[in-house]
Amino acid sequence: MREVAVIGVGMSQWGELWRSSLRDLFVDAALAAVKDAGVDVKKIDSLVVGCMTSGLFTGQEHLGALMADYLGVKGIPATRVESACASGGVAFRTGFLEVASGMSDLVLVGGVEKMTDVSADQATRALSAASDFAYEAYNGITFPALYAMIARSHMERYGTTREQLALVAVKNHENALKNPKAQYHLKLSVEGVLKSVLVADPLRLMDCSPLTDGAAAAVLCPLEKAKKGAKRWVKVAGIGQATDTIALSSRPDPTWFEATSLAAQRAMRMAGVKPSGIDFAEVHDCFTIAEICAIEALGFCKPGEGGRFTEEGHTALGGSKPINTSGGLKAKGHPVGASGVAQIVELVEQLRGEAGDRKVKGARRGLAQNMGGTCGSAVVSILEKV
Amino acid sequence: MREVAVIGVGMSQWGELWRSSLRDLFVDAALAAVKDAGVDVKKIDSLVVGCMTSGLFTGQEHLGALMADYLGVKGIPATRVESACASGGVAFRTGFLEVASGMSDLVLVGGVEKMTDVSADQATRALSAASDFAYEAYNGITFPALYAMIARSHMERYGTTREQLALVAVKNHENALKNPKAQYHLKLSVEGVLKSVLVADPLRLMDCSPLTDGAAAAVLCPLEKAKKGAKRWVKVAGIGQATDTIALSSRPDPTWFEATSLAAQRAMRMAGVKPSGIDFAEVHDCFTIAEICAIEALGFCKPGEGGRFTEEGHTALGGSKPINTSGGLKAKGHPVGASGVAQIVELVEQLRGEAGDRKVKGARRGLAQNMGGTCGSAVVSILEKV
Repeated sequence: MREVAVIGVGMSQWGELWRSSLRDLFVDAALAAVKDAGVDVKKIDSLVVGCMTSGLFTGQEHLGALMADYLGVKGIPATRVESACASGGVAFRTGFLEVASGMSDLVLVGGVEKMTDVSADQATRALSAASDFAYEAYNGITFPALYAMIARSHMERYGTTREQLALVAVKNHENALKNPKAQYHLKLSVEGVLKSVLVADPLRLMDCSPLTDGAAAAVLCPLEKAKKGAKRWVKVAGIGQATDTIALSSRPDPTWFEATSLAAQRAMRMAGVKPSGIDFAEVHDCFTIAEICAIEALGFCKPGEGGRFTEEGHTALGGSKPINTSGGLKAKGHPVGASGVAQIVELVEQLRGEAGDRKVKGARRGLAQNMGGTCGSAVVSILEKV
Repeated sequence: MREVAVIGVGMSQWGELWRSSLRDLFVDAALAAVKDAGVDVKKIDSLVVGCMTSGLFTGQEHLGALMADYLGVKGIPATRVESACASGGVAFRTGFLEVASGMSDLVLVGGVEKMTDVSADQATRALSAASDFAYEAYNGITFPALYAMIARSHMERYGTTREQLALVAVKNHENALKNPKAQYHLKLSVEGVLKSVLVADPLRLMDCSPLTDGAAAAVLCPLEKAKKGAKRWVKVAGIGQATDTIALSSRPDPTWFEATSLAAQRAMRMAGVKPSGIDFAEVHDCFTIAEICAIEALGFCKPGEGGRFTEEGHTALGGSKPINTSGGLKAKGHPVGASGVAQIVELVEQLRGEAGDRKVKGARRGLAQNMGGTCGSAVVSILEKV
């Protein structure tokens, strides 16, 4: 298997963008990544598009061909992949295999979602397609409700506090203040989170990631070629993907993200590192409780200790294990198919020393954890400055 | 890149199956393929699911994790890919890369679609997500209308006759009579096709493939391992994928399937063969005109000669280039995400000499051409008995 490098990254604007279509967003991010890589877009020989549910949000499927055409590179192989909110992470792994296998030499991986052209009701319905529809969504259980059950279980089992959940949101919004690409630049307090509207007890509005229009992209090539010709590059040291039962009620422990744990083990084995060897991480904080469960499953702290680990400041910028320096899904925004690729963008910018005020000092190795549903699927990628 | 073999194939029942859900169909096909391969389902280390638009048909996305779980193999990496009606072909290529790269050793590739639980109106709307929605479907153009324009162009440019179109349907239904898995066992005459209901002039009902519930699956492993341990195996000699502008109005020539031509060139270069070296093929006859355009783009006859080539009997069972011995999409059925994988099933059965009354004598090399939309995307795979 050939070693793979990321030689360029880019993002579109993120937010409630009524003037930008799905294809506009994708092309904006793709061209930014191509420009960052310093390559000719016509040299791209394969495209992978991560998108969760453009059919339900916009009526449009067949995104591989559509995006290749609008990017001006029609003719090349172009594949759309979907794994709910892990679609971006799966796209990155699929692009990795294109290069690793030797099938392609210059691969563009993009993630995109256009979520705000429908009503909030329709959006909630579209997102519920990530659940086990026949058993969960069909019976009226939405994602805030599912994560509320996870949060309640975590609080009862481990004594995690409401304030600890709030601290995740406070920290991620603090980081987003330093990220010009974030959807929200909004200083939050614990009190502010606790006073926000109740969505699904115990989760409040400020525990939830927003609806976002946006796209992100990365350019991949063989590591050997990157070393010879690229301006800057970061190595893909490890990548792992895994699944779990998607219906929460069928899991032995709703607070344990087994797919994240498995994906992390696979990625870390491939990279030859342990959790202690990871300098910083972007994790899938679709709800505040999700970040707490994710850092436990990644092995950054013991099961049940995620709340305390957060409260002690370990996950803050400047802490022992900075988490979501970009602002995370919570504050940077969560265009579901794009989020996994945007995590890669943050890792690359950090490892290239371009993260400005949110820089993790001395960072050599970063990890991205992207998941679908209530972690029915997960992808973990480890990037290294070599 | 490792060489890859197909060591098992399987299909669910195909038809209007109100008692079978999306997951039932997938698991039926997957277990049939695993049984055919003679492997333990627990040994599968990666899953790829091709499905076009389960979100619009059933409300369910996140099919990778869902199918892995219902197949009893949760934990493994599982990816859903989509490229409209080429989703099955793209799934096969994605599974090929899993094995070729060395990432996985025993990969299950499945395609599935559950289309008959919605009204015909809703189904037409869901399928139109394969078009350039903003420019085509939004303005009321459905797929029968798009292919009708292709047919009209072909007739005017090349003198292709209404009867030649009908002969495609007659031939494919004739073949389906010999395929117990086909949705329709119905002897057709040219007169019968010409008397069927007009759908979009010049296309009539009997020019159109049906709505179908169904799934198909294949098991892939490295060729070296297949040679050592498999009961029977067929080599994946070549595989190519390509795209084109998906909006028909933006193409220089609506009768020329450029994506099919590009994908075929890539697959044939990889396999080291020319069109003359292909003994038989399954092509994407979603409408009768599609088969005519496909055999031209594949190089089996010259552009414009597909109608005459068909009329002269070359594409019939026993002809010089048998096409759609399975009955094709027209008569075997067209569960859109499954069709590309079912083409692989037919190739494998033919190459293993298990096609019964529809056997192509002396067949050593078969080709599958699967496409999305009006050939905005295409995958061509070449399988060989070695």
